[in-house]
Amino acid sequence: MNIYLDNAATTAIDSEVLNVMMPYLYRYYGNPSSNHSLGRKVHEAIETSRRTIADILDVLPEEIFFTSGATEANNWAISSSLEAYRIKHIITSAIEHKSILETFTEHFYKNKIKLSFVNLDRKGNINLNHLEQLLVENPRSLVSLMHVNNEIGNITNIEEVSELAKIYRGIIHSDIVQSLGKFPVQLNSNGVDFAVGSGHKIHGPKGVGFLFARKRTNLHSLLHGGGQERGYRGGTENVASIVGFAKALEIANSNIEKVHKHNQTLKERLISGLKRLDLEEFEFNGESESLSKSVPNILNARFPVLPNNRLLQNILDEQGIHVSSGSACLNLSKGGSHVISALYPKSDGENVRFSFSKYNSLFEIDTAVRAIAKVFKQEKKRFLVKDLHTVQSESVVY
Amino acid sequence: MNIYLDNAATTAIDSEVLNVMMPYLYRYYGNPSSNHSLGRKVHEAIETSRRTIADILDVLPEEIFFTSGATEANNWAISSSLEAYRIKHIITSAIEHKSILETFTEHFYKNKIKLSFVNLDRKGNINLNHLEQLLVENPRSLVSLMHVNNEIGNITNIEEVSELAKIYRGIIHSDIVQSLGKFPVQLNSNGVDFAVGSGHKIHGPKGVGFLFARKRTNLHSLLHGGGQERGYRGGTENVASIVGFAKALEIANSNIEKVHKHNQTLKERLISGLKRLDLEEFEFNGESESLSKSVPNILNARFPVLPNNRLLQNILDEQGIHVSSGSACLNLSKGGSHVISALYPKSDGENVRFSFSKYNSLFEIDTAVRAIAKVFKQEKKRFLVKDLHTVQSESVVY
Repeated sequence: MNIYLDNAATTAIDSEVLNVMMPYLYRYYGNPSSNHSLGRKVHEAIETSRRTIADILDVLPEEIFFTSGATEANNWAISSSLEAYRIKHIITSAIEHKSILETFTEHFYKNKIKLSFVNLDRKGNINLNHLEQLLVENPRSLVSLMHVNNEIGNITNIEEVSELAKIYRGIIHSDIVQSLGKFPVQLNSNGVDFAVGSGHKIHGPKGVGFLFARKRTNLHSLLHGGGQERGYRGGTENVASIVGFAKALEIANSNIEKVHKHNQTLKERLISGLKRLDLEEFEFNGESESLSKSVPNILNARFPVLPNNRLLQNILDEQGIHVSSGSACLNLSKGGSHVISALYPKSDGENVRFSFSKYNSLFEIDTAVRAIAKVFKQEKKRFLVKDLHTVQSESVVY
Repeated sequence: MNIYLDNAATTAIDSEVLNVMMPYLYRYYGNPSSNHSLGRKVHEAIETSRRTIADILDVLPEEIFFTSGATEANNWAISSSLEAYRIKHIITSAIEHKSILETFTEHFYKNKIKLSFVNLDRKGNINLNHLEQLLVENPRSLVSLMHVNNEIGNITNIEEVSELAKIYRGIIHSDIVQSLGKFPVQLNSNGVDFAVGSGHKIHGPKGVGFLFARKRTNLHSLLHGGGQERGYRGGTENVASIVGFAKALEIANSNIEKVHKHNQTLKERLISGLKRLDLEEFEFNGESESLSKSVPNILNARFPVLPNNRLLQNILDEQGIHVSSGSACLNLSKGGSHVISALYPKSDGENVRFSFSKYNSLFEIDTAVRAIAKVFKQEKKRFLVKDLHTVQSESVVY
């Protein structure tokens, strides 16, 4: 059995996507920069893909730059905007993606750029009053806030953020990796200057992403040489993956409502299933329980800590049920989640992110819930037995 | 008919390579950073690939960092070494790859880093005396010289360069894209600090490359976030392409002698074929005619200019014979080649690069030579007729 509930980490490729990639992996192998017919053929495929993506996002093809993924695109957007606009102050949040936070930290230390974190409420929502206060004190800031949080699914109203930031001449960057293909993102009207997407989160291939840079913005190169991407991003293009990315977005876009509803059904079933377990110290993280304030494909929940340093996610994994950690409980799981740590610094539970896709079924959700129920039933029993025998070598907070 | 003689630009993927990639494109889709079994499975595939590549290059696995290609790796090596070693002076040559020259130009303007070009002889060979002179005047320079030139095929003795540079505490970076898999490259013993390779030049996939950074060197990140590649290069790994890259290098490495001989046979046949045409103003560029001073898979030749701004490469392309321009004749071909321009600033011909692979045959070489012969026979006739009629609207240097 294989129940994959980690679709916010990466997704299975759609066979239709792989089908359109195959000719570019094998038959049409020309270098898009080559001046002969084999080269021109693949160059056209790239430009067609660019137009497809631009059309869906309601932007111009020349505003889309292909990259090796969202991380490169985020690094590029940030370095470029800091440099091009001589930004002295950045506003972001503590629950952004690592590719953003680490790039900012780098610039903070290296280039002495001031860094402010906007206040969040208990559930991870941005305090717009605080954002405005920061903007008043620091006009012409780079404001970087993601559209949908990858761990707790919270949706940020980017239009509202953009509108506010524009008043104070801010530059707006948004990681839209988790909203792309999940609901209609109209970059033309939402006011952002830079946005970033990724192929492998929408049933496309790994190794491809894009940077959207609005036409009037200044853009500096991150990777020099070769003249690709109109001179802004050197390197032979990953043709097959670009073609696959466009196809994946096309498929996602034409099924948005259907998949949205499908995911919502799964989420509701999982929420009610988990609630019925009636676990102590159980809670949903962020806004993930809300069907309006978070995306339907992400649910993040805090479970009671299991005895003997055992992790629920590992027990599920052994049964072929793949979920993500996002655990803030640093004692138990190495690394942990900076998002959960930021929102719930004192919580002790094991945090589990469930994330769905069109390939998941209600049967899979029910199976997962049953498996979780079994774990807590067994563990409770085992723990109670152990407790009776007063095992001394363990100090477990349950 | 399709005769692909542009293998220095990119190569057709080997079906064996695609075979090992397929499971990672489709079935094993987990995110290598995921902590569950699906994630670990693909993570292991990456590490196995890294070991394969490291073993072939005689280096440590932890000295190999996967990137989106050679351009990213070159950008990374250069930015990182300039920063980590506080380099104030760079030594390179005018015939390096664009990803190197453009990155240097960027640092020259932005960070005021002094840039020196080592003298080359008429055939593009490095003047080692001049290199030493530059090193004497500027100890602790970054020396960046490619192993094999991608346009003229010249081989640079990197061991010799490294030995010399080390005396003056230089840091050595070498683009080995065109030598990788073509002859045994032993990075452990050749003294370079940084080297860069690419997948799609050796019958592997596009979108993957590596940076080799010797263990004792300081390495700074280019792409931040996510913790991949031991924290040095953020971004979800392009798993299938990494696996394919390792397989491609494995195949290339186990067939080096055979393919070397095969390419040499093709090159000798093409050299003698072209010479027999007895064209005026015909010449081989760089050392490409030499079987010892250039790689056997690259031959670069200067042809007489055709009348009416017609290009030999385009005429061949129409017949399904794909070669590369590399033309220094800026009037005729847009862009042209910076390598040929640097070596032959005053030459007027049309420069054509022929580059072979294991998939080419003697029949194809003969067909190409016949096609070229026909062009010059016809064009000469046509030109002579035109000449007799004194066509006035044309000013062609023949």
